[in-house]
Amino acid sequence: MDTSPVQDPKRPHVVIIGGGFAGLNAARRLGKAPVRVTLIDRNNYHLFQPLLYQVATAGLSPAEIAHPIRSVVRKQQNTEVLMGEVVGVDKEGRSVRLADGKTISYDYLVLATGSVYNYFGHEEWARFAPSLKTVTDATHIRRNILVAFEQAEMESDEAKRRALLTFVVVGGGPTGVEMAGAIAELAHRALASDFRYIDPQHTRILLVEAVPRILNAFPEHLAQRALEKLVRLGVEVRTNAMVQAVDEYGVVISGDRIDSPNVIWAAGVLGTEPGEWLGAETDRIQRVKVGPDLSVPGHPEIFVLGDTAFVPDPDGKPLPGVAPVAMQQGRYVADRIRARVEGHGGFPPFRYRDKGNLATVGRSFAIADFGRMSFGGFFAWLIWIVVHIVYLIDFQNRMLVLTQWAWSWFTFHRGARLIVREEPRQWPGG
Amino acid sequence: MDTSPVQDPKRPHVVIIGGGFAGLNAARRLGKAPVRVTLIDRNNYHLFQPLLYQVATAGLSPAEIAHPIRSVVRKQQNTEVLMGEVVGVDKEGRSVRLADGKTISYDYLVLATGSVYNYFGHEEWARFAPSLKTVTDATHIRRNILVAFEQAEMESDEAKRRALLTFVVVGGGPTGVEMAGAIAELAHRALASDFRYIDPQHTRILLVEAVPRILNAFPEHLAQRALEKLVRLGVEVRTNAMVQAVDEYGVVISGDRIDSPNVIWAAGVLGTEPGEWLGAETDRIQRVKVGPDLSVPGHPEIFVLGDTAFVPDPDGKPLPGVAPVAMQQGRYVADRIRARVEGHGGFPPFRYRDKGNLATVGRSFAIADFGRMSFGGFFAWLIWIVVHIVYLIDFQNRMLVLTQWAWSWFTFHRGARLIVREEPRQWPGG
Repeated sequence: MDTSPVQDPKRPHVVIIGGGFAGLNAARRLGKAPVRVTLIDRNNYHLFQPLLYQVATAGLSPAEIAHPIRSVVRKQQNTEVLMGEVVGVDKEGRSVRLADGKTISYDYLVLATGSVYNYFGHEEWARFAPSLKTVTDATHIRRNILVAFEQAEMESDEAKRRALLTFVVVGGGPTGVEMAGAIAELAHRALASDFRYIDPQHTRILLVEAVPRILNAFPEHLAQRALEKLVRLGVEVRTNAMVQAVDEYGVVISGDRIDSPNVIWAAGVLGTEPGEWLGAETDRIQRVKVGPDLSVPGHPEIFVLGDTAFVPDPDGKPLPGVAPVAMQQGRYVADRIRARVEGHGGFPPFRYRDKGNLATVGRSFAIADFGRMSFGGFFAWLIWIVVHIVYLIDFQNRMLVLTQWAWSWFTFHRGARLIVREEPRQWPGG
Repeated sequence: MDTSPVQDPKRPHVVIIGGGFAGLNAARRLGKAPVRVTLIDRNNYHLFQPLLYQVATAGLSPAEIAHPIRSVVRKQQNTEVLMGEVVGVDKEGRSVRLADGKTISYDYLVLATGSVYNYFGHEEWARFAPSLKTVTDATHIRRNILVAFEQAEMESDEAKRRALLTFVVVGGGPTGVEMAGAIAELAHRALASDFRYIDPQHTRILLVEAVPRILNAFPEHLAQRALEKLVRLGVEVRTNAMVQAVDEYGVVISGDRIDSPNVIWAAGVLGTEPGEWLGAETDRIQRVKVGPDLSVPGHPEIFVLGDTAFVPDPDGKPLPGVAPVAMQQGRYVADRIRARVEGHGGFPPFRYRDKGNLATVGRSFAIADFGRMSFGGFFAWLIWIVVHIVYLIDFQNRMLVLTQWAWSWFTFHRGARLIVREEPRQWPGG
């Protein structure tokens, strides 16, 4: 009887934790390598996070930006997928521990568990100011936004109605800017004629940023273009503004209380558990400090990549937590492991090849920074569309998302305006 | 200043409870009538329930079969939509009471709140054998089905693995047949090559029916064709089989215990609250007995329609709880109210025009009963597709659903295979 590659005990075992951009790219790149691969994720799907804000603002359905991991690696005979939650790593015994008590031993370990939002020591704010990392987060925020309009329509108290129609997005990075722009379009266009007692055009949208300007990772003139576009969309942008308190009914920004039950958090991230699991040195936002080959100092068989790794660029600045970095790191580590297994030496250190940076502000406007060349406007937005569609992993999703977008673009319609109940339904008599 | 039609106190006020097929058709038909209309639903969307089984089996996303009620009636200046939960009716004072304490007075009241599944006095089974009425039900069942395969892949105990790969559908009506067929195709085709340790082809699917045959509403030869198709798809059909117990680990069917954590309930329905709210006479499954014009005896201003009304056909048999009955009743009641408001007399009683009956079994097979003509096969399935697409309310959804279906049909792929966590996410430190 033949041994299937996935069970062949003679092959070195590569265990990858996390099916995001980094982990999935590593797994795919190892599909033909003489190893066996186990990819573990707590979800059964890969999430295309750059479009998650579209789910939160009712433009897309979750399944359109999520794809079953099993399908992606279906044809790789050496790869198995496990849906499970990792809770620890035994570096000396070379195994990972799952929440259900199982352990899985490895020869090579790739940790790519991503990031969570950083509430800067105020984790109690998360209840009132949800952030946008998971599908559940996105449908939860979508629910909140749509329910706010429904409640405003029924509210007779003018102050309460104004509060319900006030949205505060904390954090002026690409996610915050995209969210604010999308909420503005949802309110001012898609919902404009759906209500009888409120005018969604009167919706107030604030974007709050702690530093002097938004989109810090972009050149100043591009950030300025984005700012102007936001203002045209009806977004109030407050820079140099600190969030001092968040509760059920509003937020205090630099001493100024704003009544709003609709606060969305997009203000910086924290690395996830790998630093703790490994007892490794981390930076101030819990990212593991790795060597030039992305391995953990003293453990050449353990790699940390993506949002949860601290990797300095040649100037000493950390690489940003964006998809291209994660994808390149995933492929790099796969090649590195393969070279080691096949006995090749002299492998070069990881180098990020920055192909440019994009951010979109509402419909038909984006900014693009390609280093020597940078511009904003409709053409940048077309590039944004093409890049995002190309990277959406499978053909079906591309078609669906394109159809949705084409439709929304021409009609200002938003297709996924579902308020889905979060509690399980009550059964008769139960 | 003009009074907007929706607030004009001189117009009679029609309050419609429920945005399903009956309520929504009534509201649309009243769009140009000299009345003001308030449509109340606890959800913000109209759900195209005949395709809900496709959401439960990962073929479609919820937003593809649900559409915001506000958008549907956006152009009707005399219509407002309220998202809210009705908890009672004051027949004498002519008002309805909402869960938040508000009351809304009416001149005409249309109750179209649909049905819930009937557990025949065993409501405790609902926990272990969920049924399929709401979007939450569908994503919950989808989650259960997909998680069962994931757990089976990790399970080393052979008996437990077999149980995880056993699915029991209770009820051999159209919904049960469609569910069983769709699960068989999901397991035997879409998931077939995605796993390494289990073979989804070994999935066991049982369809259990209490009476001597499935699809009781169809002629016997068509039910026989459907049965043969189910068997070819790998479904075991048990007729004359009574469910005697359901628990977390399985089900007892006519004395025979079957280990399966995957039981789905599709075995008959109950009317919802209107009977109770009105103190009206109901049949044995809680449907309100209405007069020939669908009004409640003694209250010509209150109408009950759809699944929660008992309306005998000319032979005395109750009309079935299907979408065409609900739609025709909605339009009938709208016309009736309009005639009364405009002072026309001599309105005929409601008559259901049966245009035929369709049920699908898996991909590319359906049965069609048009009275004089009845047949099963691929052509019936084409009719099924056309009818369902035409009735999907808005153009975008039709396009998306068609794209999804065309893709699934050619590839056996299922696009919406998301296992979404049901608990809100745990935040760091929280």
